[in-house]
Amino acid sequence: MKKIFALVHTLMLLQNSGYCQSVETLKVREYRVAHVKDIMAEFVYFLSIPNVAIDTLNLRKNAVFIMDMMEKRNIGDVQLLSPATAGAPPSIYGEVKVPGAKQTLIFYAHYDGQPVNPAQWLKELEPFTPQLANGVLGAGGEIIDIAGQSGSFDPEWRIYARGASDDKAGVIAILNAYDAIIKSGLKPACNIKFFFEGEEEAGSPHLNQILEKYSSLLQSDLWVICDGPVHQSGKKQVVFGVRGDAHIDLTVYASKRPLHSGHYGNWAPNPAMMLVKLLASMKDDNGKVTVKGFYDDVIPLTAAEKKALQEIPSVDAQMKRELGIINNEMPGKSLMASIHLPSLNINGMQSGNVGKMASNQIPTMATAVLDLRLVPGNDWQKQQQKVIDHIRRQGYYVIDREPTDPERRKYPRIIKVIPGRDGYNAQRTSMELPIARNVIQAVKSTTSEPVVLVPTMGGSLPLFLFEKYLRAKTITVPIANHDNNQHAENENIRLQNLWNGIETMATLMLMDR
Amino acid sequence: MKKIFALVHTLMLLQNSGYCQSVETLKVREYRVAHVKDIMAEFVYFLSIPNVAIDTLNLRKNAVFIMDMMEKRNIGDVQLLSPATAGAPPSIYGEVKVPGAKQTLIFYAHYDGQPVNPAQWLKELEPFTPQLANGVLGAGGEIIDIAGQSGSFDPEWRIYARGASDDKAGVIAILNAYDAIIKSGLKPACNIKFFFEGEEEAGSPHLNQILEKYSSLLQSDLWVICDGPVHQSGKKQVVFGVRGDAHIDLTVYASKRPLHSGHYGNWAPNPAMMLVKLLASMKDDNGKVTVKGFYDDVIPLTAAEKKALQEIPSVDAQMKRELGIINNEMPGKSLMASIHLPSLNINGMQSGNVGKMASNQIPTMATAVLDLRLVPGNDWQKQQQKVIDHIRRQGYYVIDREPTDPERRKYPRIIKVIPGRDGYNAQRTSMELPIARNVIQAVKSTTSEPVVLVPTMGGSLPLFLFEKYLRAKTITVPIANHDNNQHAENENIRLQNLWNGIETMATLMLMDR
Repeated sequence: MKKIFALVHTLMLLQNSGYCQSVETLKVREYRVAHVKDIMAEFVYFLSIPNVAIDTLNLRKNAVFIMDMMEKRNIGDVQLLSPATAGAPPSIYGEVKVPGAKQTLIFYAHYDGQPVNPAQWLKELEPFTPQLANGVLGAGGEIIDIAGQSGSFDPEWRIYARGASDDKAGVIAILNAYDAIIKSGLKPACNIKFFFEGEEEAGSPHLNQILEKYSSLLQSDLWVICDGPVHQSGKKQVVFGVRGDAHIDLTVYASKRPLHSGHYGNWAPNPAMMLVKLLASMKDDNGKVTVKGFYDDVIPLTAAEKKALQEIPSVDAQMKRELGIINNEMPGKSLMASIHLPSLNINGMQSGNVGKMASNQIPTMATAVLDLRLVPGNDWQKQQQKVIDHIRRQGYYVIDREPTDPERRKYPRIIKVIPGRDGYNAQRTSMELPIARNVIQAVKSTTSEPVVLVPTMGGSLPLFLFEKYLRAKTITVPIANHDNNQHAENENIRLQNLWNGIETMATLMLMDR
Repeated sequence: MKKIFALVHTLMLLQNSGYCQSVETLKVREYRVAHVKDIMAEFVYFLSIPNVAIDTLNLRKNAVFIMDMMEKRNIGDVQLLSPATAGAPPSIYGEVKVPGAKQTLIFYAHYDGQPVNPAQWLKELEPFTPQLANGVLGAGGEIIDIAGQSGSFDPEWRIYARGASDDKAGVIAILNAYDAIIKSGLKPACNIKFFFEGEEEAGSPHLNQILEKYSSLLQSDLWVICDGPVHQSGKKQVVFGVRGDAHIDLTVYASKRPLHSGHYGNWAPNPAMMLVKLLASMKDDNGKVTVKGFYDDVIPLTAAEKKALQEIPSVDAQMKRELGIINNEMPGKSLMASIHLPSLNINGMQSGNVGKMASNQIPTMATAVLDLRLVPGNDWQKQQQKVIDHIRRQGYYVIDREPTDPERRKYPRIIKVIPGRDGYNAQRTSMELPIARNVIQAVKSTTSEPVVLVPTMGGSLPLFLFEKYLRAKTITVPIANHDNNQHAENENIRLQNLWNGIETMATLMLMDR
């Protein structure tokens, strides 16, 4: 009787929620529906623990909470993996050995988040006070009471908080996928390892130490990286590579003290004007980077990768509509084509004050933060050096600290250039490997829609480290909605994406060789 | 006996403090030396009352405190002059009628200050917690205890606080000059009126209303404007004109929501890059403004003004050394020549975040605040319009609010341009008028050094209003040290400048026709 009831329930879910290939996946869904309130409560609590890089105490609290969640699920060998550098945030490890399993998958997500500037968030939001909204805030959605929900959560609702999508959703999806498998009486088809990093948004500066130190513990047939958004079309995607990333901080110096713009304007050099001239020299009017040699070194795509690229549905028109823009930066280049080129982007720029704080001054300095995205073939330090060489060619004296008085007396244009030490190269796994084909097949089994296969996604992760220290393969299976505001204010996750994420991760855990 | 003692004291002061022409001025000095502790205490209390434009309650407290100071000195007819616009900060008026006086001078200073960003001040300073330092902070000076001083204040010491030099020092100098004259048993040679404005740093938006409403009360033979710094050479100066001023706020819009620079960098337009291209288009590499017609309309200097300009000691080399720069913005143009040209200056610029708050995003907007300084002949609104026309010529769709969705769908380059409504034209009084010659003579009588005569100073004051509503002449007699950081962080006044200011103002009050 109980079994028949379960089957009817399963069929009802099938009918209500569209296509679903396997009974196992449906059982996972059934578990999620039945336990949604608990899952939400756990997620919300997790999101309320601040997770920005400088806040080491709270990062530690996040780690402890993840260990608690893992132990509650009877995951084995739960432990902190600390890098050699004292004080750096640990990764969290756990494992489940499955008798008879022929392969081992290791599931990756990260629990740290990007820095927050609460002043830039909507005034009804605080980065670490998770809020539930019945739609997109600022586009008709309104905040609703999380605690007041009886257990029925509309899949279009969203949770707003730093880390909601990037990447605490990954941690929650992986742990609940495992939970759903076990609690539904299913058995994973592979040995499962868990690895939750705490420094991804800071550029994973100590991941190399962890991978090296724990290299035997971390052996696997594949790393499944659960991070980033699904395709903008809403379709699931499997990603085989990531762009590399490198930063450069620039500070142009002018007068040693701020000057009254009336008494000195026109005469004293204005560092903001110097900086805009310098930055403007780095791109032409067609968005092409004019830094010498910037596009050299790029390894061309293989035939299979080119084919995959062609099959990716174009979202350019949709994205332009959604973002309220009509031109892209490089006329004629699609989003996908642009992502497969190295880029130079201004993340932030500041000099003096604007708005109510503005005053009639000539500032003493002007700062910009650039990020350089890299594709296979680029070396991150070489790419930084190309930009630094360009700056020198504009007549700048380049230093890595504030200028001294003798330097000020010698050089008319002085700039502090701090190349980020946390850069890394791009990485790409062949989509023609047998395990890659299996992953593609497994993800396809969870949806009636085509699955988008992406040779290189726009985001960056230090996946080259896994290759370097573990000789491991990595494939990224993202789950977040593409309009999640990750890395910015008002970060959020759409609930249906979290639900799909749980099912996708579970399907990979159930995937045989 | 008492008289002989006073004379000896006077001679000692003369010996210790260099050249001094008149016995009256010496008596003023003697009074200041004897009462320095009280003067300092009153000044420090005054500086501790916040005085930024948005803080109307505290501005009112400043006004009340000034009235108290005036009433304590038995100044007559003390009253608030309120503009027609309710809530706008009042000016404070008072007057002293002198039997037999042949003319009336009205002394102007302002009690409001520029906005403050406490985070940019030295960490040992707070804008409204005045501190005494035994030199320049950051250049060997250290904070010393104000309360602990017995009454001997080294003239090289400085008071740090918002308004210390710009322009509460003006209020204090004027009131103590009057006090010193009366308490020394001297008699002013003219009728004296006092006028202390509360909105100068906000662009004097209601000064026109006050001047119009109280035009008969405010009649005089000359307005003495006590504001701004003395010459950079340290010499006293008399200034006959001011630059006009106008602002423009610019905000370039790109994507409606912040984007991950990995997923969209290279494709989505970056508003910071758009803004730097736009700003860079406004000046050439020689600092010349490239906005069409920018230098048109300028009225040439008269022969006397050109001669005065030539006699102004060049401080270019000294200033470059002091400011730690070796090139000025327009190669070959001196500071004085630059000030007599209209200027375009970036006061502030902001997009995304820099430093620890930086994140891997493409910001949604980028903002800059420009100020335009004007010389006689320029019309401030016409000058703003030239810049707006230039922006249009760069392909921008110009609006005065955030763009709508239909506008975003129609225009690739959208900018919000807010021309400041608080602009005004330059103004210049002839230095050949008899009263102008008398002022020059009076200031010369206080110092053995040459007095610098400046046709137009770099700073801006809405002096055209006095001409327009009162048909009044204005001459500016500044007192602050030139390195006072006015309008910026760490504003300060050097005590010797305040002492000199008291003597200069007193000498003008003692000046006969």
